[in-house]
Amino acid sequence: MSVPVYNARIIVTLRKSILDPQGKAVELGIHTMGYTNVEQVRIGKFIEMQIDAPNQGAAEKVAREAAQKLLANPVMEDFHIVVEKAS
Amino acid sequence: MSVPVYNARIIVTLRKSILDPQGKAVELGIHTMGYTNVEQVRIGKFIEMQIDAPNQGAAEKVAREAAQKLLANPVMEDFHIVVEKAS
Repeated sequence: MSVPVYNARIIVTLRKSILDPQGKAVELGIHTMGYTNVEQVRIGKFIEMQIDAPNQGAAEKVAREAAQKLLANPVMEDFHIVVEKAS
Repeated sequence: MSVPVYNARIIVTLRKSILDPQGKAVELGIHTMGYTNVEQVRIGKFIEMQIDAPNQGAAEKVAREAAQKLLANPVMEDFHIVVEKAS
């Protein structure tokens, strides 16, 4: 029997208290397109991966470690993880 | 009465057929951490914004236009949009 595969998706976002100049630039671009009803644009990172793990908890642990130690800067960024069994 | 506010989240990912060297680099980093059970790491962009719109459909239209014309490169990237009424 093969080990189950899980799909993990991690979203890393700047904390609300941190200025986001890239988001401001995109917001200006959207306004220039004529959509002045758009505001609070913020840019983050999206990371997806496949994890071979015996169960959901083990897969979540790997994704969380990767996010904490490699993908997110804990001083400036928050992260959100979703792990689902691959169909 | 004020116009309703919608939260839009847009995820932009490289098409499957496009090589993702940044994802490969992150995958190597995760392997170096000892998690060799991780593969197919791919990196994308996450964009969130607030849209003032009379209804959900109007908010989705704005988010889709921004994604198509500004945020995603239609040759290399796909995008996925979620729009929710702000609570």
